[in-house]
Amino acid sequence: MDKLTHFIHIIDEEIQKRPFNKEPQQLYQPLNYTLGLGGKRIRPALLLLANDLFGGKQALAIDAAIAIEIFHNFTLIHDDIMDNAPIRRGHPTVFKKWNVNTAILSGDVMLVESYKLISTCESVVLPEVLKTFNKMAAEVCEGQQYDMNFETQQNITIDDYLKMIELKTAVLLGASLRIGALIAKASVTDVNHIYAFGQNIGIAFQLMDDLLDVYGNPEKFGKQVGGDIISNKKTYLLLKAKELAKNELKKELEFCLSSKTLSPENKVNRVKAIYSQLKIKELTMNEMNHFYNTAIAHLDSIEVPNEKKLVFEQFAKGLMQREY
Amino acid sequence: MDKLTHFIHIIDEEIQKRPFNKEPQQLYQPLNYTLGLGGKRIRPALLLLANDLFGGKQALAIDAAIAIEIFHNFTLIHDDIMDNAPIRRGHPTVFKKWNVNTAILSGDVMLVESYKLISTCESVVLPEVLKTFNKMAAEVCEGQQYDMNFETQQNITIDDYLKMIELKTAVLLGASLRIGALIAKASVTDVNHIYAFGQNIGIAFQLMDDLLDVYGNPEKFGKQVGGDIISNKKTYLLLKAKELAKNELKKELEFCLSSKTLSPENKVNRVKAIYSQLKIKELTMNEMNHFYNTAIAHLDSIEVPNEKKLVFEQFAKGLMQREY
Repeated sequence: MDKLTHFIHIIDEEIQKRPFNKEPQQLYQPLNYTLGLGGKRIRPALLLLANDLFGGKQALAIDAAIAIEIFHNFTLIHDDIMDNAPIRRGHPTVFKKWNVNTAILSGDVMLVESYKLISTCESVVLPEVLKTFNKMAAEVCEGQQYDMNFETQQNITIDDYLKMIELKTAVLLGASLRIGALIAKASVTDVNHIYAFGQNIGIAFQLMDDLLDVYGNPEKFGKQVGGDIISNKKTYLLLKAKELAKNELKKELEFCLSSKTLSPENKVNRVKAIYSQLKIKELTMNEMNHFYNTAIAHLDSIEVPNEKKLVFEQFAKGLMQREY
Repeated sequence: MDKLTHFIHIIDEEIQKRPFNKEPQQLYQPLNYTLGLGGKRIRPALLLLANDLFGGKQALAIDAAIAIEIFHNFTLIHDDIMDNAPIRRGHPTVFKKWNVNTAILSGDVMLVESYKLISTCESVVLPEVLKTFNKMAAEVCEGQQYDMNFETQQNITIDDYLKMIELKTAVLLGASLRIGALIAKASVTDVNHIYAFGQNIGIAFQLMDDLLDVYGNPEKFGKQVGGDIISNKKTYLLLKAKELAKNELKKELEFCLSSKTLSPENKVNRVKAIYSQLKIKELTMNEMNHFYNTAIAHLDSIEVPNEKKLVFEQFAKGLMQREY
């Protein structure tokens, strides 16, 4: 078993060991429900991995790791209300299973519980850990706001989009790694490099998600391939196509986006044909590789023996080679 | 000008000096809007007052004071969604002026902003300050949950009710004072006494609110006298009446609570007549005085010269002697 998998198991065990058995149950049950639905536990495991990379003690980092997972789940509970999403990890979302008020208030107390855990860090690292956590938490809210704005906003640029996915997704990966490194008392330079590794990998990951939605293996993908195209979702691919399409191709793209008569299948095929002419897949992969390579450059700059960094490199490669 | 008023002015000035000029505006505008609606600024002023009582430096406490005010306003934004309240301080609530999603997400980032400020405390007091803040924040959520539960729940006891108002209202007063004292590096005993002073005064304050809703001066009260009676709100007065009413009086109370034909005016008069027979006003005042006296006893036990404590005593007296 590799180290990442090992840490994922540890996080799962820890979460099972610490149910919220507090009153009022109406407030705390949704926390146990949400945390019990699983999830990949990647973020807290990365925190432990970063802590381990710099020789930190696991016992000093475990609360912060759980804090990250609880924070992540808080964002899911509130995002699901805002996105009106009925299902999460194959189960009803909190606001569907209970109601909106419960989802708001349980989400709130979940955010507070994440702060309770992050506050238990050793006092010598506490101010820096909190600074990282606070900044990340505000940025994740900003990312969600931009994401909601984009739904109705026209003329989103590629830069706007990259900023949004950085805030909504990537900073949490970066912060998880940074906090693990801070708890291990890594040097300022190394702490910044591991943060930048996570941040860049996070953006690359999201671009891969955009790619897989169109070009993923339908048998492995688990959701409808082309879903983003059908819903006109402003992904990197669509924004790039809008930027590059001229004349007839521009008209064809505009027709596909606005037509109410086109069948979903035809729409996917015709937009894919546009993407193909504009080499959107290749351009997206180039962008993704740019962020991937930047991440790896930061990893390379960290001053620990290379063999200790291998697990991070494998993790990064794994994200880029996935088919779903 | 007394010290409390002085500190209230300082808080008002500080809030004006620090608008949230960050992007995306859709996220941060509601914070400025809410903080700009005013409010009494009692909680942050009490924090500064407690800091001053123990000889603390104002400059070291001001961020924490603003954090308390921002936290309080976060709870208002989310509570107003849950309570479906259209008006706050004479203006539309955030979810009415914008929408529910904005109110959820702006509330979230507001909670994070309060943590950013509380995290800037001197590192030597930071762990204890955070512990107080975290505990208070979770308890306020618990109080709101109990309050919502009570709307549909039968057989609420007086103890349930006192617990709810303690969590929903009183612990924030206690925590404000406690944090001010912690920043001033007061002794553990004094820190606990000032917390207990705030907590007990907070409960007494809420009982006074219940009394004023029925017996307040209609010209000064600003809202409909008897509103709690008309809406069957489970206040201390109603719960006490339910506990004590027997036989005919019990039937009369049940009739008033369930009748759909009784005019609001008649309902208020008939319930007040029941309260009068059962001496509910006197019993509530006794309970209120019990909490008031407990608060004053804690104040008396604080080891600073009595003249420095006068402002707290006056504040407490003022709360108990108000007519609205």
